[in-house]
Amino acid sequence: MNYILKDENAVYYECGFSCDNEIFLKLENDAFFFTDARYLVEAKEFIKNAQVVLMDRRDPFKAVRECIRKSRIKSLVYNPAEWSVVEYDNLSSKLSINFKKSLNFSQKKRVIKSDLELDILRKAATLGANAFDNFAKYVCKNGLGLSEKRLFNEAENIFKNYGELELSFAPIVAFDENSAKPHALPSDKILKKDMLLLLDAGVKYKRYCSDRTRTANADENMVLDKNAKFKDALKQKVYDTVLRAQEASIKKARAGVKASQIDRAGREVIEKAGFGKYFIHSTGHGVGLDIHELPVIGARSKDVIEENMVFTIEPGIYLPNRFGVRIEDTVIAKSNRVEVIG
Amino acid sequence: MNYILKDENAVYYECGFSCDNEIFLKLENDAFFFTDARYLVEAKEFIKNAQVVLMDRRDPFKAVRECIRKSRIKSLVYNPAEWSVVEYDNLSSKLSINFKKSLNFSQKKRVIKSDLELDILRKAATLGANAFDNFAKYVCKNGLGLSEKRLFNEAENIFKNYGELELSFAPIVAFDENSAKPHALPSDKILKKDMLLLLDAGVKYKRYCSDRTRTANADENMVLDKNAKFKDALKQKVYDTVLRAQEASIKKARAGVKASQIDRAGREVIEKAGFGKYFIHSTGHGVGLDIHELPVIGARSKDVIEENMVFTIEPGIYLPNRFGVRIEDTVIAKSNRVEVIG
Repeated sequence: MNYILKDENAVYYECGFSCDNEIFLKLENDAFFFTDARYLVEAKEFIKNAQVVLMDRRDPFKAVRECIRKSRIKSLVYNPAEWSVVEYDNLSSKLSINFKKSLNFSQKKRVIKSDLELDILRKAATLGANAFDNFAKYVCKNGLGLSEKRLFNEAENIFKNYGELELSFAPIVAFDENSAKPHALPSDKILKKDMLLLLDAGVKYKRYCSDRTRTANADENMVLDKNAKFKDALKQKVYDTVLRAQEASIKKARAGVKASQIDRAGREVIEKAGFGKYFIHSTGHGVGLDIHELPVIGARSKDVIEENMVFTIEPGIYLPNRFGVRIEDTVIAKSNRVEVIG
Repeated sequence: MNYILKDENAVYYECGFSCDNEIFLKLENDAFFFTDARYLVEAKEFIKNAQVVLMDRRDPFKAVRECIRKSRIKSLVYNPAEWSVVEYDNLSSKLSINFKKSLNFSQKKRVIKSDLELDILRKAATLGANAFDNFAKYVCKNGLGLSEKRLFNEAENIFKNYGELELSFAPIVAFDENSAKPHALPSDKILKKDMLLLLDAGVKYKRYCSDRTRTANADENMVLDKNAKFKDALKQKVYDTVLRAQEASIKKARAGVKASQIDRAGREVIEKAGFGKYFIHSTGHGVGLDIHELPVIGARSKDVIEENMVFTIEPGIYLPNRFGVRIEDTVIAKSNRVEVIG
């Protein structure tokens, strides 16, 4: 199969290097990495299994088209999610080969992790978990009286010390009402004792992501484990429901089951407790080089779990203008269970 | 004109709000903002001039298509750089209207800044400049002996304190050889006295970007102004050349000149000094909501400068495996000069 890639992580997976402007072309017997002058030195230093070719910034696809013409290939697979309409037009307009769409083919290739990747993901998860503990300690000592924005900055700093320069994603730090928005932006809201605090964050290790969420009662003894005890009875009820839902999904998850069954197991718990309409997202997503990759763990997913797939299990209940609870772990699917890595 | 937008900054420009999953549809008499359940509460709170519509996450374009059908419009303008091939297919496949490509039409609309935008950009530039001074003080006190990675983290922290949560872009902190890569990633390399240090960084203020670069001789008295004095004679020669080039481009820049003339003015200085082939990028780029927008200040640019365009002037010389020098300011074009804002 001849294929062309442009996504950073997809390219990194192929050749162990990527930057922010590159194209990777894999032909039967050859591989090419195209980049501009800014990255040429590093690319040549790090890439062993592909020829590094200078890209003309005026016409970034010129060298690629020339290379394709020279190769005399008849067809080329590409991911239509990776290419903008204008890029695709620039690449394909002057070529008379057959472009074959294959949605997310790199992510499909990456869905089952190698032993080496699993070790890296375990390590990333451990680093992420340690950062959660450290953040909890910070909140106990200094957190009450600080704003979401301030604690967001602290979370970024703490998580960076545990992982690589870039985090898996911008942490979500939300109190009470703001936690009812699954992707809350940090506000000037001040943390007070016995508010609910939600932290969703992850680090990168060797470019692989960790991902975890904890929800807790903010006070001087807060720990970000799964045994949160809330002052408020409704918060506790919602929390216990989400926790039981997460446990049900984790229990269901293993090689051979449908991803939709994992979603169903947890969603049922939440529905039975009367909160069904407040669980407004899917149960989880694959994790690897991308923070969101395959499989999709949701009601309409067609994915079937296989051994060594890695994904999150993260049910939640969001009561608008009041609070939200989410509990998330990353897991590795095994033949008869999952390994919870953090 | 009926048009559709998906880029965060393009949408923000239209309605004063954006998140990370949205579509903005502007029809003759109506405007619509489509987003998913995660952002609905905030969108309704902040958007006054468009109707907020819930997007089905299974089929994000369903509600958009329905809205387009109901409106009975015949054609719709879109930016082919904003839409992936698969998104465009999903949007357009079931509609029988005429989609008109218009490359970067939102950026074209935004190229001349309003007085309000200029004030925001000036303020962003001032905050960014203050962060440069603060970073320089940090390096004087603690920097010698620290790694690029460590100083990168410090730069991020310092710049965040001067701007909004998100920076304009990840700062570039590079010493000696690493500075020869215009987009260097921070390494474990340790800063020693009299190494060359390059800092390229910016903050955001009310979502608008600042952008500036300084290069200096690292020591206990380092300041990040334009009067850098290097121990090494070659560094000084290269530095003085880049500074003269920047001054020549700044002098040339004003309303009415071609962007390519601004590039030419600086490039000529560098070519005459014998370093032409080491100036491996364009002279500058527009700055606004996007860190890279219009106009393009380069040799092949067709753009003509108009009053109140805002762009960078940032020539550089990069000697591979030795060092690189870049000096960058952001400027506002006026009728007979530019205002250097930082």
